[in-house]
Amino acid sequence: MKFESERFVLGDVAEKEDVGGGVVRQIMGHNDDLMLVRVRFAEGAIGYTHAHPHSQVAYVESGVFDFTVGEETKTLKTGDCAYVPPDVEHGAVCKESGVLLDIFSPVREDFLKD
Amino acid sequence: MKFESERFVLGDVAEKEDVGGGVVRQIMGHNDDLMLVRVRFAEGAIGYTHAHPHSQVAYVESGVFDFTVGEETKTLKTGDCAYVPPDVEHGAVCKESGVLLDIFSPVREDFLKD
Repeated sequence: MKFESERFVLGDVAEKEDVGGGVVRQIMGHNDDLMLVRVRFAEGAIGYTHAHPHSQVAYVESGVFDFTVGEETKTLKTGDCAYVPPDVEHGAVCKESGVLLDIFSPVREDFLKD
Repeated sequence: MKFESERFVLGDVAEKEDVGGGVVRQIMGHNDDLMLVRVRFAEGAIGYTHAHPHSQVAYVESGVFDFTVGEETKTLKTGDCAYVPPDVEHGAVCKESGVLLDIFSPVREDFLKD
């Protein structure tokens, strides 16, 4: 493995990166094949539409999000999940503040610092 | 892709499979490369020690779990994460009822029905 996190990554300890616009990101467990990212959104914050070759699932831990995959948008709440196939455009708008878990395969190397 | 879920998998709609011993499992978003499984544990329920070639991260959505990876055990609560490298033994004991998210790469074909 080129990339590998600690075996336990605690939410109170993992670095919180303010990426602007009311979005704060924590890199949680990962290796070359898999990465879990915890993302806190303020109400109104936007995950802008983009695409990447990674497979992704997003899971709503808390809050409410309008989540778009391709041409389809759904309002998601705690316990709901979106699946984003590789290279499909997707984005989210936070309707009530909360936390999205973004999970990628393979690892998002661009999220990792040297 | 051989396996691919719907693009939106809602927690109120996804099938709940009672796998016994106080453990109820929902298969959420997935494709060949990635699978998110939501697992509800009653207090005292056990995820027995096992290993598999898949990479895994586990995330505590709610509750408290004693989670073991290899030789190390930690008490995890909401917002905490464990990373399980391929072929490393791991297991969990639920100390306060809650939900673990188990995420695998590649997909757990053994969890999918024909």
